[in-house]
Amino acid sequence: MEALSEKIFLKLDMPNDQNRRGDRDKIFDALKEKYGQVIMPYKILKELYPKCREANFEITVTLARRDYDWVVTKIECGDTTHNHYGLCVDLGSTTVIMRLVDLNTGNIITEECIFNKEIKFGEDILNRIFYTRNSKEKLYEVHKAAIDTFLELLDIIEKKTNVKGEDISIMTVAGNTTMIHFLLNIDPWTIFQTPYTPVFNQPGFINAEEIGIPISGYVYCFPSVANYFGGDIVSGLLYTEIYDSDEISAFIDIGTNGELVIGNKDFLVAVAGAAGPALEGGISKFGMRAKKGAIDTIKIINNEIKYTTIENGKPLGICGSGIVDLLSEMFLNGWVDFSGELKENASKHIIKVDNELAVEYASKDESKNQESLIFTQSDINQFLKTKSAAYTMVAFLLGEVGLTLDDLDRFYAAGAFGTHLNLESAVTIGMYPDLDRNKFNCPGNTSLEGAYKLLTNRNLLSKVDNIASKINYIGLENAKDFLEKMRGASFLPHTDIDNYPSVKANLIKRGLL
Amino acid sequence: MEALSEKIFLKLDMPNDQNRRGDRDKIFDALKEKYGQVIMPYKILKELYPKCREANFEITVTLARRDYDWVVTKIECGDTTHNHYGLCVDLGSTTVIMRLVDLNTGNIITEECIFNKEIKFGEDILNRIFYTRNSKEKLYEVHKAAIDTFLELLDIIEKKTNVKGEDISIMTVAGNTTMIHFLLNIDPWTIFQTPYTPVFNQPGFINAEEIGIPISGYVYCFPSVANYFGGDIVSGLLYTEIYDSDEISAFIDIGTNGELVIGNKDFLVAVAGAAGPALEGGISKFGMRAKKGAIDTIKIINNEIKYTTIENGKPLGICGSGIVDLLSEMFLNGWVDFSGELKENASKHIIKVDNELAVEYASKDESKNQESLIFTQSDINQFLKTKSAAYTMVAFLLGEVGLTLDDLDRFYAAGAFGTHLNLESAVTIGMYPDLDRNKFNCPGNTSLEGAYKLLTNRNLLSKVDNIASKINYIGLENAKDFLEKMRGASFLPHTDIDNYPSVKANLIKRGLL
Repeated sequence: MEALSEKIFLKLDMPNDQNRRGDRDKIFDALKEKYGQVIMPYKILKELYPKCREANFEITVTLARRDYDWVVTKIECGDTTHNHYGLCVDLGSTTVIMRLVDLNTGNIITEECIFNKEIKFGEDILNRIFYTRNSKEKLYEVHKAAIDTFLELLDIIEKKTNVKGEDISIMTVAGNTTMIHFLLNIDPWTIFQTPYTPVFNQPGFINAEEIGIPISGYVYCFPSVANYFGGDIVSGLLYTEIYDSDEISAFIDIGTNGELVIGNKDFLVAVAGAAGPALEGGISKFGMRAKKGAIDTIKIINNEIKYTTIENGKPLGICGSGIVDLLSEMFLNGWVDFSGELKENASKHIIKVDNELAVEYASKDESKNQESLIFTQSDINQFLKTKSAAYTMVAFLLGEVGLTLDDLDRFYAAGAFGTHLNLESAVTIGMYPDLDRNKFNCPGNTSLEGAYKLLTNRNLLSKVDNIASKINYIGLENAKDFLEKMRGASFLPHTDIDNYPSVKANLIKRGLL
Repeated sequence: MEALSEKIFLKLDMPNDQNRRGDRDKIFDALKEKYGQVIMPYKILKELYPKCREANFEITVTLARRDYDWVVTKIECGDTTHNHYGLCVDLGSTTVIMRLVDLNTGNIITEECIFNKEIKFGEDILNRIFYTRNSKEKLYEVHKAAIDTFLELLDIIEKKTNVKGEDISIMTVAGNTTMIHFLLNIDPWTIFQTPYTPVFNQPGFINAEEIGIPISGYVYCFPSVANYFGGDIVSGLLYTEIYDSDEISAFIDIGTNGELVIGNKDFLVAVAGAAGPALEGGISKFGMRAKKGAIDTIKIINNEIKYTTIENGKPLGICGSGIVDLLSEMFLNGWVDFSGELKENASKHIIKVDNELAVEYASKDESKNQESLIFTQSDINQFLKTKSAAYTMVAFLLGEVGLTLDDLDRFYAAGAFGTHLNLESAVTIGMYPDLDRNKFNCPGNTSLEGAYKLLTNRNLLSKVDNIASKINYIGLENAKDFLEKMRGASFLPHTDIDNYPSVKANLIKRGLL
């Protein structure tokens, strides 16, 4: 373990006639040999006496690693090295996940997830930004909501594990550019205004106390690359290690925004754009987030819709992975055509609602107090835009570096959406490219995993900087034919079916082609 | 000029489509090339927006140098590089001298001196230490008095020069071990208790804000070597450069304490001890500090005492340099013998007061409202201890390294006492050794000058550490025959007159030998 902080037990001579070094200097001498550049803040200096002498100079020093030095964050009496903790955080605009890690072993002690308290200022990040516009007080409110989210998580963790903030010496945070601005009480207005330049990409190590987080050390926020390309993605790249690989990988994370990176150890190119609310339940009356009662998988068997719900709850709506399944199954069963149009007579589940075709994927059942749940043609059309954006980003970025799909050795579908998605369905509707399935990898919450990886391996600090500076970020506004390409990709699976040989074979097998 | 802080004017691109680096990161890129390891504290990060953009990214960055990195202490709009100041301070237990320096040129703008406000807790440092014993509140009172002294000096300087604290980015402070402990609100109790170990030798760079000094950067305190060997002497050594010389030098500073260093580029040995109040007016009813009205030089011409006073004030008493002159002149005129005994009939100025012989160095004169000023035999005996301690320290330390007086190439008599002293008188009474007069050097307030030197040349930072770690400090408690040697040196000029050939020749010439 070479974690981002260290605890070291020192057994030093008590002051005596042979050794009259000052307390501070004796500790420094002992640390410098192992740690090199060390700083002892004034706050710690003030606490040395009489603490060290009362402890008979058997003390434990906690040091937090920064870019090029170590900071003494705590001095305790006796040997407390067993008591050494860190936190890693995925700071999402919707949910915040905090993981408590034993920094002696790397063991995960607990992981907690709550909603980001900033939501009360707007579910959409843009609403929060507009809320804080031109007001330091309102900016502080949103900032405080972020901090309060952290405080609640720390509280939950302390109640569960008995580990207190003062025993935590370091925290790594991965979040998008705006979320980190809010966390640090810095106005994110410029991120969304041309020319979309944040106040900072890399904020450096920040004393937790200065932003009101009650741990005894430092907060490290992953650097962003651009307005829509935040530290959460840099963290994800750190986790996947595509920047160190000979293989050419694509890394895609589709959530509120969509980010895509293609590259290997020699190059990294990236695009990003707002994916819109399609995947978070915003497009349909019955669309919803992936929580209890959301339909997350769908199969059509013998012309009947079979579904599962999250935590087996009563069906309340459909989440992203359910939508992808629904579209894919309808396409493979001839309920929608190549352009995504519902076929009126293909199934009894295709009904007319307010003069618009829709599929009723869950029927009304008064005995179960079950409402009718539908997905309309408009919903489908809206979703097709998202799926074609995902595909087009890949095609565009490959084109920018002169590669084709065949050159991709690996395809990482990161994030919650990537994790819960049925891969076959995503390929069937043309959201992901039709690659050898062995090339796909769904690594889960890479933002959190990257933050964990850095927390437990300080040697990666310079890697993070390398990744951030190596990425060649291409603003989508420079992609002149992007919209045109998107239209081509809005067919199921694509205008050019030969791009999708496995889907083509399946359609032929099913007699649909 | 390579001062301890720098101001640099940057003219950077405004955010644009070609350059979307964050404000912080753009500034960092510009700084890193020249400055290497740079830290921008959170406080500065928070101020970047909208400041930089409003300034059209024409900004001036102030950086303070620390041991191995630079800290951004200020960002201003436009080019303010002309406005760049630092302070150096001699923090004495009696007086505090502060010098304002233009860090672009090294020019001294003003120098102010006031009494240390700690005096109200005791003229003697020991009284202050006992006052604060076991009480954080009382420790804070004395600390606050030190800070208030700095505040008053800053106030005087601002009124005189219009330079504000916020325009000052760095301050160097040289003071003895106890004074620096008080300045930093750290209990100095251990310095005076066996085994005499301070809480710290080197406190490192401290954010001025943290100790309540309203400048916008850092405070650097010179490190101490031991309880009685403080940063003021380390600063003095830095000034004289004896640590870099081939020549073997002695450096002596006699004030409240006496400190002596002997060495060259290959070695530095040191002793120190309490010199006692002899030189600060504490030994005689009419002894006084070197201020207006103090008799500072004395000559005996035709058996009459001629004196001068500081600022030509009405004579109020006698200060250290006056005492040395008085003793020397009395000795050369046969008023005292070799053992320092007053000769009752040698002069009409030798009188009996309360059954004790005394010299009346200023006569009562009612027309001038002038009191009779006397120096008694007890006063002389007391002073002889001080002068013999000074001599014995030199002899002892030379002996420790196997050298003799002949090996000394240079003799620095530092401090206010050394500066105002008549060298011939000091040699005549045997306080200083009888060296070739060309070897003597009275460099003045070396504590202040060393602080100034570092302030204006950051490359000396590592020199300071080298000096402090190179010094071999010998506690006088280890000098077993010290008291015996002191007795030998309490004669005028010394038991062994052959140690003082020039004095011997003079005495022969005057028919006293």
